[in-house]
Amino acid sequence: MSDNPVVVGTGLTKIGRRWEDSLSDLFAEASRQAIEEAGIQPQVVFVGNMVAGELDGQEHLGLALEDGAGAFPLVPAFKVESACSSGGSALLAGYMAVKSGVYDSALVVGVEKLSEEPSDSITTALAEAADADFESYYGASFTSLNALLMRSYMKDYNVPRDWLSEIAVMMHKNAVDNPYAQLRKAITVEDVNRSRVIADPIRLLDCSPTGDGAAAILLTRPELAKGDVQVELAGMGVGVDTIGVNGRVSLSDVPATARAAKAAFSAAKIEPKDLNVLEVHDAFTIMAALALEDIGVVGKGEGAKFFHEGNAERDGKLPVNPEGGLKARGHPVGATGVYGAVEVVRQLQGKAGKMQVPRAEIGAFHNLGGSGSHAVIGVFKRKR
Amino acid sequence: MSDNPVVVGTGLTKIGRRWEDSLSDLFAEASRQAIEEAGIQPQVVFVGNMVAGELDGQEHLGLALEDGAGAFPLVPAFKVESACSSGGSALLAGYMAVKSGVYDSALVVGVEKLSEEPSDSITTALAEAADADFESYYGASFTSLNALLMRSYMKDYNVPRDWLSEIAVMMHKNAVDNPYAQLRKAITVEDVNRSRVIADPIRLLDCSPTGDGAAAILLTRPELAKGDVQVELAGMGVGVDTIGVNGRVSLSDVPATARAAKAAFSAAKIEPKDLNVLEVHDAFTIMAALALEDIGVVGKGEGAKFFHEGNAERDGKLPVNPEGGLKARGHPVGATGVYGAVEVVRQLQGKAGKMQVPRAEIGAFHNLGGSGSHAVIGVFKRKR
Repeated sequence: MSDNPVVVGTGLTKIGRRWEDSLSDLFAEASRQAIEEAGIQPQVVFVGNMVAGELDGQEHLGLALEDGAGAFPLVPAFKVESACSSGGSALLAGYMAVKSGVYDSALVVGVEKLSEEPSDSITTALAEAADADFESYYGASFTSLNALLMRSYMKDYNVPRDWLSEIAVMMHKNAVDNPYAQLRKAITVEDVNRSRVIADPIRLLDCSPTGDGAAAILLTRPELAKGDVQVELAGMGVGVDTIGVNGRVSLSDVPATARAAKAAFSAAKIEPKDLNVLEVHDAFTIMAALALEDIGVVGKGEGAKFFHEGNAERDGKLPVNPEGGLKARGHPVGATGVYGAVEVVRQLQGKAGKMQVPRAEIGAFHNLGGSGSHAVIGVFKRKR
Repeated sequence: MSDNPVVVGTGLTKIGRRWEDSLSDLFAEASRQAIEEAGIQPQVVFVGNMVAGELDGQEHLGLALEDGAGAFPLVPAFKVESACSSGGSALLAGYMAVKSGVYDSALVVGVEKLSEEPSDSITTALAEAADADFESYYGASFTSLNALLMRSYMKDYNVPRDWLSEIAVMMHKNAVDNPYAQLRKAITVEDVNRSRVIADPIRLLDCSPTGDGAAAILLTRPELAKGDVQVELAGMGVGVDTIGVNGRVSLSDVPATARAAKAAFSAAKIEPKDLNVLEVHDAFTIMAALALEDIGVVGKGEGAKFFHEGNAERDGKLPVNPEGGLKARGHPVGATGVYGAVEVVRQLQGKAGKMQVPRAEIGAFHNLGGSGSHAVIGVFKRKR
C-alpha cells in the first residue's frame, strides 16, 4: 500500500433552493473549483448521492453528471450510495482508488437536489434509507425515528431540553459567517422551544433543512501534489449497525459511530484528544450530542453538556461545526459528507476566513447514514 | 500498492423468476456459498445493483441486504452503481479496497430483482441508465437505442442478419449445460428470425431476458488465501463515453469498451491474444459482435464473422460466453458483471463442469453500462 492521498482542490456551492440549477449544474460548479485549484484533471470520479434515481429518474448518475456538466474530459465515474453517508462513502472510494495505485487522482463529488419536490416526496425518498419492510412500511420517517433517540437520551441522562436547543442556537450563530450556508440567521433558545412540533420531542428548529448543493474534493498521490500546504487524508473508518432502530440494544447511543471512530483513529494514528476541529453529522440536534460521545470526545451522557458549557464554540476546547453544521449550513443528503470533509480541509489550510479556528492541524468529519446505521469518519492532517 | 487480490470464494444463484425470494434472500444465497468456500469472513461488502431504489423503495442497499440476509456479521457495506455495469464497478471497488490495504477481504455481490414488476416498469427503470433529459424523456428505451447500433453495424460492414441470429443460437446452446441459466433451451436461426420484432431490427430472441439473481465473489490478499489453485484479479480497467448515443461519432463501435480493454490489459500485462476464455456483455446479440472488435480479439467489422466461423465455441480459438452469456444465462442487471467474473474464475479453477474450456489460464469479463457509455473489464490469471 502506498502513501495516504493528499487534497489538492476543493469546491463548494451555496446550499439552498437552487431552482435554476440542475444536478449537473451543481456538480459542475463544485468540480470546476476543485480542479482549478488543483491544476490537475481527475482520472476517476466518485459521486455521493442518494435520491436522484427516485426523484429525478436518473441512475447511471456518475456519467450522467459528468457528461451533463462538461466541466472536464469524461473519465470513469461511479455512484456510491449509503443513504445520508453517501458523501463519506464516495470519499472512501476515492481514498482507496488513490491509495491502491489504481488511479493517480480521484475527484469525489457529493451532490443532491431536494428542493424542487413536495416535502412528502422528499420524506418518502429519504425513508428509503430506513428498513423498507420493517420501518418505512409502517410509516416511520427519519424525524420520528430520531425522536425516539432524543426522548430516550433526555430520559436516560436527565438532559434538559434547553441544552439540545442550545446546540441549534450555536449552529445558526456559526452559519451567519458562512457564505455557503442555507440558514444564515441567528436564533434563540426560545425560538427553538416555540417552533412547531414535528415528531415529539423534535421541533422544527431541531431539524436540518432540505436543500440543494454540491461539494467536491480532489485527491492525488503526495508526490504529484503542488502547493505550500499539504493536507493529507490520514485515515478513514466505517462502522455499521442494524438498519432498523428496532434491532438496537440502546436508543441512547450510536455504536456505528464509535466503530467508525475506532477504525479511523487507528488508521490515522491519533486519539480523540488530538483533534483541533470536528465536523459532526447533526441532522437533528440530538445527533450532535450523541456524536461527541460516540466519537470519544466526552463520556456517555456528556455530549449536550459539552455544548452547554461552550466547549464546542470556535474558541472552545474542541470547535465543533464552526461552519454551522447540517443544522444551519444545510444538509443536501448525499453531499453532506463531502461538505464536512471540505470544511475540515479548509480549516487545516487556514482558509476558513471568519470561521477559522485556532491551531488547526488535525481535524475529522463524521457522516451518518440511516438512523445511526452507517457511520463514516475521515481524519485529515496538515503535513507542511 | 500491494499485490493483486486473489479470489477465495464465489457464489451464484440460478437466474429466473424468483418470486418467493427477496433481494436479501438472493444476496444471502450467493454470499453464503462464497464465504463457505473461502473459510473467511469479509471485512467490507460492495453491492452492485441498479434499480432497487426505483422498484423496491430501498436505498441504503448495502446495509439493508446484509441486515436482511443475516448471512454473516454486519460489516461496512456500500452500493456501487453505474447502470448495467454496476456489478463490474462493485468489483472494482473490492479490488481497490484490498489492493489499497484498507481492508484485508472484500465481498462483492451483484444482485437484482426484476421479475415481480410489470414489463413497462422495468423498461422505465432501466431507461434511468440513459440520459434522462435527452433520451428517456423522448421515449427512447434500451432496445430502441441498441436497434440503432445493430442497424448501423449491419449496414457499415455488410453483415448478414443470420450471423447475428447465430450468436443467439450459440448462447442458448451453451446455456443448456448451465444449471444457473435462465433460458436452458436450444433455439435455431429460424426461431430468432421469426420471433417478434421489438425495435427493428432487434427481435425478441436477440434480447437477453429479465430475471432475478445474485452473484458473489470474495477477494483477499494473496498471503491470507488458502487452497490449491489461486486465481488472481490481475487487472481492471474502465472506459467511458457520452451517456447518450446522440453524442457519438459512430454507431458501429463502442469506444468505451476499447478504452476499458486497454487499461485492463495494461494493468494485467497481457494482450487480447493471451486470453483463453472471455465473457462479453451480450444484452443484445449486436453487443457480442461489437465487444469482440472493441476488445481487440478481431478487427473492425469482423466480430459477427468470428462467431459465424465457430471460433467462439467452447473448443474454438477463443471460447466466448461458454455459460450462455446474458442472452441465455440471463441478465439480472446489477448482478451481471459479477456473474461474468465468477464464470471466468470457475473456468480458471477448472470447476466449470460440462462448460469447461481447455487450457484456461487467463480470462477476462466485460460488463457494459448504458448504451455503450460505461465499460468495465477485469482480467483473471491462474497463479498456481
